[in-house]
Amino acid sequence: MAVSHTNSAWATLLDVGSAERGRRHDRLARALRAAIRDGRLAEGAAVPPSRALAEELGCSRWVVTEAYGQLIAEGYLSARVGSATRVSWSPDTAPAPPRVRSALVPQPIRYDLAPGLPDLRAFPRRRWADAVRAVIGSAVHYDLGLPDPAGHPVLRTTVAQYLRRSRGADPQAVFVSAGVTDGLVRTCRALHADGITDLAVEDPRWARLWDAAASTGLRVHPVPVDQDGLRVDDLARTPARAVLVGAAHQFPTGTVLSPERRARLVRWARKVDGFVIEDDYDAEFRYDHHPVAVVQGMAPNRVFLLGTVSKTLSPALGLGWLVAPAGLTQALRAANPVAAAPPVLDQLALATFIDRGWYDAHLRAARRRFRARRDLLVRTLGAEVPEGRVAGTAAGLHILLHLPDGTDTRGAVRTAAVAGLRLADLDDYRATPSAERALVLGYGNISDPEIPPAVALLRDVLRERP
Amino acid sequence: MAVSHTNSAWATLLDVGSAERGRRHDRLARALRAAIRDGRLAEGAAVPPSRALAEELGCSRWVVTEAYGQLIAEGYLSARVGSATRVSWSPDTAPAPPRVRSALVPQPIRYDLAPGLPDLRAFPRRRWADAVRAVIGSAVHYDLGLPDPAGHPVLRTTVAQYLRRSRGADPQAVFVSAGVTDGLVRTCRALHADGITDLAVEDPRWARLWDAAASTGLRVHPVPVDQDGLRVDDLARTPARAVLVGAAHQFPTGTVLSPERRARLVRWARKVDGFVIEDDYDAEFRYDHHPVAVVQGMAPNRVFLLGTVSKTLSPALGLGWLVAPAGLTQALRAANPVAAAPPVLDQLALATFIDRGWYDAHLRAARRRFRARRDLLVRTLGAEVPEGRVAGTAAGLHILLHLPDGTDTRGAVRTAAVAGLRLADLDDYRATPSAERALVLGYGNISDPEIPPAVALLRDVLRERP
Repeated sequence: MAVSHTNSAWATLLDVGSAERGRRHDRLARALRAAIRDGRLAEGAAVPPSRALAEELGCSRWVVTEAYGQLIAEGYLSARVGSATRVSWSPDTAPAPPRVRSALVPQPIRYDLAPGLPDLRAFPRRRWADAVRAVIGSAVHYDLGLPDPAGHPVLRTTVAQYLRRSRGADPQAVFVSAGVTDGLVRTCRALHADGITDLAVEDPRWARLWDAAASTGLRVHPVPVDQDGLRVDDLARTPARAVLVGAAHQFPTGTVLSPERRARLVRWARKVDGFVIEDDYDAEFRYDHHPVAVVQGMAPNRVFLLGTVSKTLSPALGLGWLVAPAGLTQALRAANPVAAAPPVLDQLALATFIDRGWYDAHLRAARRRFRARRDLLVRTLGAEVPEGRVAGTAAGLHILLHLPDGTDTRGAVRTAAVAGLRLADLDDYRATPSAERALVLGYGNISDPEIPPAVALLRDVLRERP
Repeated sequence: MAVSHTNSAWATLLDVGSAERGRRHDRLARALRAAIRDGRLAEGAAVPPSRALAEELGCSRWVVTEAYGQLIAEGYLSARVGSATRVSWSPDTAPAPPRVRSALVPQPIRYDLAPGLPDLRAFPRRRWADAVRAVIGSAVHYDLGLPDPAGHPVLRTTVAQYLRRSRGADPQAVFVSAGVTDGLVRTCRALHADGITDLAVEDPRWARLWDAAASTGLRVHPVPVDQDGLRVDDLARTPARAVLVGAAHQFPTGTVLSPERRARLVRWARKVDGFVIEDDYDAEFRYDHHPVAVVQGMAPNRVFLLGTVSKTLSPALGLGWLVAPAGLTQALRAANPVAAAPPVLDQLALATFIDRGWYDAHLRAARRRFRARRDLLVRTLGAEVPEGRVAGTAAGLHILLHLPDGTDTRGAVRTAAVAGLRLADLDDYRATPSAERALVLGYGNISDPEIPPAVALLRDVLRERP
């Protein structure tokens, strides 16, 4: 019989897999949709009457009418009274554009001396999980509603106390951010709206921050860094009324802004009626003294302070803060109308983590660990790479290794990568070329026992016999 | 003795509270810093010799020299050989700008019929906590490193499967986003970079999305919505080659894009070589049929799909997704150089929550609850506000209440707010004025027993006797 013949073809065509999840009419709708999309059922083709298809598939007629109804609602089928139900859709005839594969092909890494990561193995998993569980249990249901873009008041208060106590800040207005980059973008937008058009940025500098500032429409001007940090007097050679500065431990040079320059920097901001954006990304790790207080505390009306837990806990948390002058908080909100704070439960978990003293305890343990590891790295470099000169060791999670003029640092980084050793060339962070040769070595994400073989590998690379 | 006299004054001035946290030299440094900042210690003033101050404070000389050293490093004090240590800093002399208080003064809310929130009381706390705990325990330490801006591969895969299975999508490339607004901003930036200058947006529409699109530099054009959804033919009256559309349940009208319009929309996109941005924010809640498949599945090369868990779980999670045409994934990355994915642990928790079947179970339970609540709301409105006409009930978490011409809906919203009833005026979402009067009533964040008294209050407000 014709009907039987048709039906048999339909059963094959549709392939309503019984192993698949979902109710029968959903499975049938999915199979029909797939057949229409890939062109097996062409536009204009009639689908069988519901009774006939039900018989063939061994299901109730209701299953078929439900599936047809679903596809009619979606525009794949159309039904006219007194006529067959027909396919009313055709796929793109143009070939699909080629799939572009991500350029990020991970290299196998044996030793990670690249800067930027804390000790991921030491992430305080148990206490973080405890903080999250406590928060999920105790949050009032209103905390689960629309979040305040400025951040949850509980975390803002906790961070204010922390910054006052540990960083010597005068936090008039704390905003929760997703980290330093997010905080910088928000700040730059507010400054732009406030009439500032030019931003000075240290050179060398992390390119991502440069890009982030430029993405807000500010013109960016490099200002050199020497052994005392930012050359403040050179700010006058730019049209900038705002500057981004790493006072506690400049990235990547590792220099600490000298006391005299700190004072001069704030005087400059007052004189030009401008602002300082202080990137305080890894200052908690200061080894020779206690952490130096932030510049922000010297002039809270002139300094934005950016912080993060990316270098103390993990960048995977995506949590940071932005302290703004009290007079600019409204401008900051207005200039970032679609900015959102990080997830509220994470914010509350961090507040709990800090309030219970776990953050301070984690920092103390990490500081001890990193100081010992820095000492080991510096010692090993002294023995294995005696031609190098180490700098920027006072704080943070990376150091600078100055090398003799003419050293092919770019080639060394490339050769090392092939051998499984990750590190960075200071040149990669420069806006202005320099003859000075140096490598940037991070020691956050490497274990102590890995340091001697990693440095030995670096030595071999530098002597061109890896 | 002179020294004793001086010291006694210093002890009072510094007020080194012993109740405060921290080691003694930290406390002294903090007290000195505070005194310099607030002008009690003026620039140029000499601080006592360390031995004298130590004697007065009853501490070791080391405590004082540590504190002085700290403040010298911070630029507050300066020491010259053979001279007294002096204050080298002065606070701003200009008065601090007035603190601007947040304009967000929360009104006491008795009944919440405003649209936009899911049932916060029904957030699956236990299972979410279980998912987070599982993830914190099982994540490899590399997951705690620098996150992929496109999102964690595990969640991208899980979301792709979910969208294929539940939304009839053809997810060629899934990016994790912080929600619909974030996804829209990223998409608009990519389109802008691809040469698109104008975007059509439904009118009425949620203003935040309009602002988000405009913030990327696109010119935005309103296109009207009628009972069949977006008036697709009117797109030709704009210069736009891209359109933002809520196909499954338009906000705020609640209309569902008709089957015929869905097909016409995709034909339009092909004809103008343009793109559709499909806002699929609350489509999981469809009550009369199963959820209608997304338009994205009809033309994956032409449609961006934006989704979120803000309306199904909670906006506090800040998690969503963005499905892009395969050919535009590189453009999407390139146009958003400083965009970051949500926190990795949250991404992995959502993947676990979906993979264990908890998301589907939560949606099933929520759909049942919301359908019953919608029925109760519609029934109560029919009895109490018979002059109103309800629309947009097929899906989502809000409905439209059309009211007779001339009703002062704006006044009603204001009066209701004073009485503790939150709701919204359709006019608040319009780009183009209209004589049509309607209220937007959300039923996500209100309990069933609250509906009768809330509607009675609304009735009284509309009859101007609250």
